[in-house]
Amino acid sequence: MNIVDVILDKRYGRELSDEQIQFFIDGVTDKSIPDYQISALLMAIVLNGMSEREMTTMTLAMAASGQQNDLSYVDGIPVDKHSTGGVGDKITPLVMPLCATFGVQSVKLSGRGLGFTGGTVDKFESIDGFQIEVPQEKFPELVKATGMVISGQTPDLAPADKVLYALRDVTGTVDSIPLIASSIMSKKIAGGAKAIVLDVTCGSGAFMKTPERARELAEAMIKIGNLAGRKTIAVITDMDQPLGRTCGNALEMMEVFETLIGKGAPDVVEVASVIAANMVELAGKNGDLTGDALVEECKKRLVNGEALEKYYELIIAQGGQVMPNGAPVYKVKPFEEIRVTSPETGYISGIKADVVGHASVMLGAGRVTKEDNIDYGAGISFYRKVGDYVRRGDVLCSFSRGENSDADEGVLYDVMEYILDAYSFSTEPVEKKPSIIDIIR
Amino acid sequence: MNIVDVILDKRYGRELSDEQIQFFIDGVTDKSIPDYQISALLMAIVLNGMSEREMTTMTLAMAASGQQNDLSYVDGIPVDKHSTGGVGDKITPLVMPLCATFGVQSVKLSGRGLGFTGGTVDKFESIDGFQIEVPQEKFPELVKATGMVISGQTPDLAPADKVLYALRDVTGTVDSIPLIASSIMSKKIAGGAKAIVLDVTCGSGAFMKTPERARELAEAMIKIGNLAGRKTIAVITDMDQPLGRTCGNALEMMEVFETLIGKGAPDVVEVASVIAANMVELAGKNGDLTGDALVEECKKRLVNGEALEKYYELIIAQGGQVMPNGAPVYKVKPFEEIRVTSPETGYISGIKADVVGHASVMLGAGRVTKEDNIDYGAGISFYRKVGDYVRRGDVLCSFSRGENSDADEGVLYDVMEYILDAYSFSTEPVEKKPSIIDIIR
Repeated sequence: MNIVDVILDKRYGRELSDEQIQFFIDGVTDKSIPDYQISALLMAIVLNGMSEREMTTMTLAMAASGQQNDLSYVDGIPVDKHSTGGVGDKITPLVMPLCATFGVQSVKLSGRGLGFTGGTVDKFESIDGFQIEVPQEKFPELVKATGMVISGQTPDLAPADKVLYALRDVTGTVDSIPLIASSIMSKKIAGGAKAIVLDVTCGSGAFMKTPERARELAEAMIKIGNLAGRKTIAVITDMDQPLGRTCGNALEMMEVFETLIGKGAPDVVEVASVIAANMVELAGKNGDLTGDALVEECKKRLVNGEALEKYYELIIAQGGQVMPNGAPVYKVKPFEEIRVTSPETGYISGIKADVVGHASVMLGAGRVTKEDNIDYGAGISFYRKVGDYVRRGDVLCSFSRGENSDADEGVLYDVMEYILDAYSFSTEPVEKKPSIIDIIR
Repeated sequence: MNIVDVILDKRYGRELSDEQIQFFIDGVTDKSIPDYQISALLMAIVLNGMSEREMTTMTLAMAASGQQNDLSYVDGIPVDKHSTGGVGDKITPLVMPLCATFGVQSVKLSGRGLGFTGGTVDKFESIDGFQIEVPQEKFPELVKATGMVISGQTPDLAPADKVLYALRDVTGTVDSIPLIASSIMSKKIAGGAKAIVLDVTCGSGAFMKTPERARELAEAMIKIGNLAGRKTIAVITDMDQPLGRTCGNALEMMEVFETLIGKGAPDVVEVASVIAANMVELAGKNGDLTGDALVEECKKRLVNGEALEKYYELIIAQGGQVMPNGAPVYKVKPFEEIRVTSPETGYISGIKADVVGHASVMLGAGRVTKEDNIDYGAGISFYRKVGDYVRRGDVLCSFSRGENSDADEGVLYDVMEYILDAYSFSTEPVEKKPSIIDIIR
């Protein structure tokens, strides 16, 4: 087989055979196909698309390109969740303990953040003492003890995807439904999941800007999941404004704790409950509960202390510190340095999540390059959200940084100017959008 | 400027600015843009196309990427011709001396053949003693002496095109009107031509398989030429069967000589005369003659000995040997080894030029890789062409190799089986197609 013929077939819009796709992914993995041929084929895929069969074959080939986790030590069906990314997304630290209250065991492999999409690993790491790099041989022991483990140590999962992703990033081929869908699903499958709940975010702070595109991506992933024998459900969630009341690592983990003691933001409670309900159902641990009743049960356990109990178990099992009053201890305490006040009187009609995300990175909460250090205490707190009425001078949000941060004072004012552009106002009342846009099975 | 943004613009179907195209070609030339980004952009261009302005800007940027020849020593307007390639194409050795009879001076830079498209350099080199690698500083002297020079020495002409072409060859991006058109035109412009006649071949032995595609390529090149201030005419010629009576280097040069002494094949005479007429007109050396009258005058001079006179001058000036009887001396004399007879009685309805071309390469007349040696004596002679009536057992064609060739006998029988597939027959009379399909200005 010859890679040029494979490129030509895709270039002329023909469907690739399973053998051609396997040949391509093998060549990507063992580096026998040079970068310039890979990137030409990627661009042809971007512009000419892929059938469901092609996407599924590519996903499975990528999943098989490295280690494939065996989660047979998990009690029941191993279910995983994945978010396509957003600003203020603290759903994973909520659904893991919430699912655990139903006896759903979680093995969560997660990444560090890059750019404005925060990484779950960084969030957990903001808790003092929390050990996020867990050796794989310790997973069964931790799962047996608490029903949960979260780790950032995922060395050889879908290495073909790593090669492709690095190339896509520098060749303008990131935004492509077949490539995004196969990348996400290959990692979930290699991670050992037999059932998958996808949180497909949508809006200014998400990769998919419109509900239509989000639905398209969701449907592609569901089809791959089904063809690959993994039950898959996609929840399309709003990411047009930041989720909840905070973004930034320690700030978000503080919001997680607030949520678990019953003081959560409605959108966070809603999204976490719906995601968890679907995970519980796919894991077959829902008992007699289904649909709205299951979601209501999730909401109840999320805020009544049941999930908090499991959350403590998770933190303590992985070395995290908790104060006698029950609040976790953070590596760096966020210090609120400046408050941003409203320049107008009226209803907040929009808070662009991508602008907020970039502002948060400027404050030190995220990385621009992989090598950057982050300030766990940096981030933004939202006092008002879309639909709220504000008067001129009311506080819209505030900026925090680590209490001993010696970063430049001036950056706060730069960020302030920048973030004011994220807000828009209306004299007419603005309807609050639902957090859950759709659920696709 | 960032190359990823340039790729993204083309990927999303937006027109690139002149600055973006210049940035791209500069980065290709100085190798600051890595291959994988170049190939991604090439594939995006292939699939999303280029406007006339984009093609012209890219052509001029490629032309300016290396040495640009100054042909001010040429008397009159420097006119060049280019063929998009074919099988049995011996037009250049005919039009150079033919144009010279009108006082049109030619500086012809030509390449070696690769694959089944023969190279003009190889054809001239089959003449004993002919020096094809002429140092550039000797060009003015030769042009002054005979009005002509032909050379294969073109080291730094449009180096950006060389980089792009090498990548296109291995990334499935060869067949693209904007990329083909800009590649051809950049080399012609860098070569110093102020007017250009394009022989756009069309059919099984050509890159463009249909008249529609050939016309599309012709129109793209004419637009580039006009926007770049070069008068450009395209002659679309038939390459569905091989041109003339031979393919192979010495065989074709023998056919050139036959043509110049008045014994040429009608298609060769027709195409050479039409191409030359347009060159003479663009060079402004046509006097009062235009249109058909000019073509007729070209036909006359092609066969009445006038062009032959100039042909001798060209050969002798570059060191080629001519026998006392007037025929050039060939490095290797073709020896007719085997004749292929017709398996059927009827009219020849097709001779696939690409199959013939490959057969000729198998005999040793062409190169598969750049490093291959060729047998100047190898090639195929056509006794019958499309439209001719043959009886079973009549000779269709014959294979020749160099008289001292020690190549394997067996290959002749392999080639014979192969070439019989090139022929198709019909019981009904078959109309002979015209050699000139269209002329576009």
